[in-house]
Amino acid sequence: MTLSNSRTVRIEWGDCDPAGIIFYPRYFEIFDASVAALFERALGLTKFQQLKAFDFAGYPLARTRARFLKATRFGDKVTVDTTVSFGRSSFQIEHRLSLEGALCVECQETRVWVVRDSATGGLKPQPVPEEVKAKFGL
Amino acid sequence: MTLSNSRTVRIEWGDCDPAGIIFYPRYFEIFDASVAALFERALGLTKFQQLKAFDFAGYPLARTRARFLKATRFGDKVTVDTTVSFGRSSFQIEHRLSLEGALCVECQETRVWVVRDSATGGLKPQPVPEEVKAKFGL
Amino acid sequence: MTLSNSRTVRIEWGDCDPAGIIFYPRYFEIFDASVAALFERALGLTKFQQLKAFDFAGYPLARTRARFLKATRFGDKVTVDTTVSFGRSSFQIEHRLSLEGALCVECQETRVWVVRDSATGGLKPQPVPEEVKAKFGL
Amino acid sequence: MTLSNSRTVRIEWGDCDPAGIIFYPRYFEIFDASVAALFERALGLTKFQQLKAFDFAGYPLARTRARFLKATRFGDKVTVDTTVSFGRSSFQIEHRLSLEGALCVECQETRVWVVRDSATGGLKPQPVPEEVKAKFGL
Repeated sequence: MTLSNSRTVRIEWGDCDPAGIIFYPRYFEIFDASVAALFERALGLTKFQQLKAFDFAGYPLARTRARFLKATRFGDKVTVDTTVSFGRSSFQIEHRLSLEGALCVECQETRVWVVRDSATGGLKPQPVPEEVKAKFGL
Repeated sequence: MTLSNSRTVRIEWGDCDPAGIIFYPRYFEIFDASVAALFERALGLTKFQQLKAFDFAGYPLARTRARFLKATRFGDKVTVDTTVSFGRSSFQIEHRLSLEGALCVECQETRVWVVRDSATGGLKPQPVPEEVKAKFGL
Repeated sequence: MTLSNSRTVRIEWGDCDPAGIIFYPRYFEIFDASVAALFERALGLTKFQQLKAFDFAGYPLARTRARFLKATRFGDKVTVDTTVSFGRSSFQIEHRLSLEGALCVECQETRVWVVRDSATGGLKPQPVPEEVKAKFGL
Repeated sequence: MTLSNSRTVRIEWGDCDPAGIIFYPRYFEIFDASVAALFERALGLTKFQQLKAFDFAGYPLARTRARFLKATRFGDKVTVDTTVSFGRSSFQIEHRLSLEGALCVECQETRVWVVRDSATGGLKPQPVPEEVKAKFGL
C-alpha cells in the first residue's frame, strides 16, 4: 500500500513576508504539490499523464483546516508527510510539516474527484475509479 | 464600530489552474489582504504605517479552516465580507466570499498579535493594544 | 481607439519579501492582469468570455524585459499604465508602473495569440483576428 | 570557482494556468530561488544566515529580460543552469531553463547588493564585499 509520502521542501525567500516568516498561503501550495507527489508515486504517472489516463479534471478541495504551531522561514528545509484515506468520490488528506523533527503545521483536507460536466462546462464529483484505488493497494 | 469590511476582488487568469478554476491557495492570499483592508480601514493607517505606529510584527495565523462550496474562475468579480472579534492577544476572523450573491467559500481564522522578541529574534504573542481595539470602536 | 488602459493596484503584505519590498515576480502577475484588463475593456468581455468568443487559448509571452527603478512596498497604491500595439500574430505591450507620479517599473512584452493545436495537443500561434483588432479601433 | 549552479525544479499544477502551461511569473520565482541556491552553495550559508553574516538586505533586481521559447507544464522536471558574474555593487545573472535538453527559457538579470539605509529606512546599493567574492573563488 502506498497511502503516504514524505518529501523535503525548501522554504524560499520569496515565500516569506516582511516579518521574515513564510506567508501562510504558501503552505497550501506546498500541500497541494504534496498531494500531487503522493498520487504520482502511487500511480506511476505525473498529474498531466493522470488526467489523460483517467479522464478526470483534478481533485479540488471541499474543505481544509490547518494549525500553525511554529513559523518557518527562508532557508529552512522542511519535511512534509502526507497520508490519504479514500471515501467514495472524496478522499481525506493529512499533512504534517516539520522542521528538524518539530511539528510546524498540521493540515486536514477533504478533496473531491471531479470530471468535466459536458452539460454545463463545469465540474462534477464522480467516484474515485477502482483502478486508481488499486494502485494505492486498496 | 468598524468590525467588518467588504471588498470586491477580481479573480485573475494567473490565479487559476489547468482545471480553469481558482487554485485554492489564492483564496488565502485574498483573505490575508482582506484582513489588512479591515485593519487599514479601522485604524486609518496602511499596514506599513501600522507596524510603525504600534511597534508590532504582524498578526500571523494560528489556525484556519475553510469550506469551498462553489468554484470561481478568472473574470469573476467576487465579494469578500470580513468580520473580526477580538480576544486578548488573539482575534477571530470570519470571511464569506460570494459571487453574485451565492456563497463560494467560508473561512474562519484565529490570528495572533505578535511582536519581535529581542531575546530570540523570533516572534512572540502580545495583547492587542487597547488603542487598537478602541479604533475598532471597542 | 482603446489601445491603453490605466488601473490602480494595491501592493499587499503577502506580495512583499523579508526586505519589506515587493518580491519582483509579483510585478509580472500585476502586468499579466493589466493586459487582461485592457483586453476586457476593449472587447467588452472577460477573458473567460473571450476564450469562448474567439476560440483561442490565451496570449502567452514570447519575451519580456523590465527595469526596476524604485521599490514599492505593502500599502502602496500604484498606477499601472498599459499600452498595446498589434503585429500579425503577436503584439507588443508596454507597462509603466508608478507611485505618486514617480516611475517605479517599466516593462516591455511581446505576446503571441495562440490556439490549441489539435494535432499535437500543444499551442500554436495564429494571426490576431481582425474582429479583435477592430474592437481596439484598428 | 563556484560561479554557476544547476538545479532541478518540478513544475507544479498550481504553477500552471487555464491554458495548462506554466504561468510565466512562476519562472521568475524559480529564477530567484536559483540565485539563492547559487549563493548558498558558494557561501556555505542559507540566505537567512547570509543576511546575518554580511549585514546586507538582499540583492533585488535592477533589470531582467527573458525569452520564452517552449512552454512547460505541470509534471515537467526542468533543469535551471545559473551563472553569475560580478561587477562592483551589482552582478549579472544568466539562467537557462531546459526540459530534456531543450532550452525553454533564457533570462539575464542585473541585481544589486543592498544594505539598509539607516537615514531613510530604505535600501541603498553597496559594493559586494570582497569576502563574498572570495567565496566564489574571485
